[in-house]
Amino acid sequence: MSAPHVACPVERTLRAVDGRWTTLIIRELLRGPHRFGELRDRLPTLSAKVLTDRLRTLEERGIVSRTALRGAPPAVVYALTEDGRRLEAVLDALWDWGTGR
Amino acid sequence: MSAPHVACPVERTLRAVDGRWTTLIIRELLRGPHRFGELRDRLPTLSAKVLTDRLRTLEERGIVSRTALRGAPPAVVYALTEDGRRLEAVLDALWDWGTGR
Repeated sequence: MSAPHVACPVERTLRAVDGRWTTLIIRELLRGPHRFGELRDRLPTLSAKVLTDRLRTLEERGIVSRTALRGAPPAVVYALTEDGRRLEAVLDALWDWGTGR
Repeated sequence: MSAPHVACPVERTLRAVDGRWTTLIIRELLRGPHRFGELRDRLPTLSAKVLTDRLRTLEERGIVSRTALRGAPPAVVYALTEDGRRLEAVLDALWDWGTGR
């Protein structure tokens, strides 16, 4: 019995936002680029390890970009890619249905 | 470290559509009420057991209703509840993002 083929766009999107905390991180980055520390301040119940793992996964999925800023002190900024920003409509639809229950 | 609280509407919606085949079953039922056999015809790669389990879960989640029709031969019809029909906007948003990649 073959699983719903990953070619199915709905399944692809569910995989992109899959994983605990993923949607919360995307929602924060929809407000704009953040440094790691700022994300930690915004998501206090998230450990540094989990946040690091999720950001790496989102980078691999092409949803988040990671940019090292020049100058001192060195800093890394996380931002949504174009695909990442397009997830706003998905999060809105998920939010609307969830609040309607 | 507490998980995203199930009160979060986005998490609630993700849970509602969670589970392999769930979105495919909902998409079929968006076309209208179906009998079990019709759903099996529409989703040939899905075993009867998996379809039965998923329909029961969707019933428990308040997304699908199950109605026993009077008359002969006895028949059972599955349909989306109002909450179920409201998932159309979610599936559309998931589809749009997935096809945009």
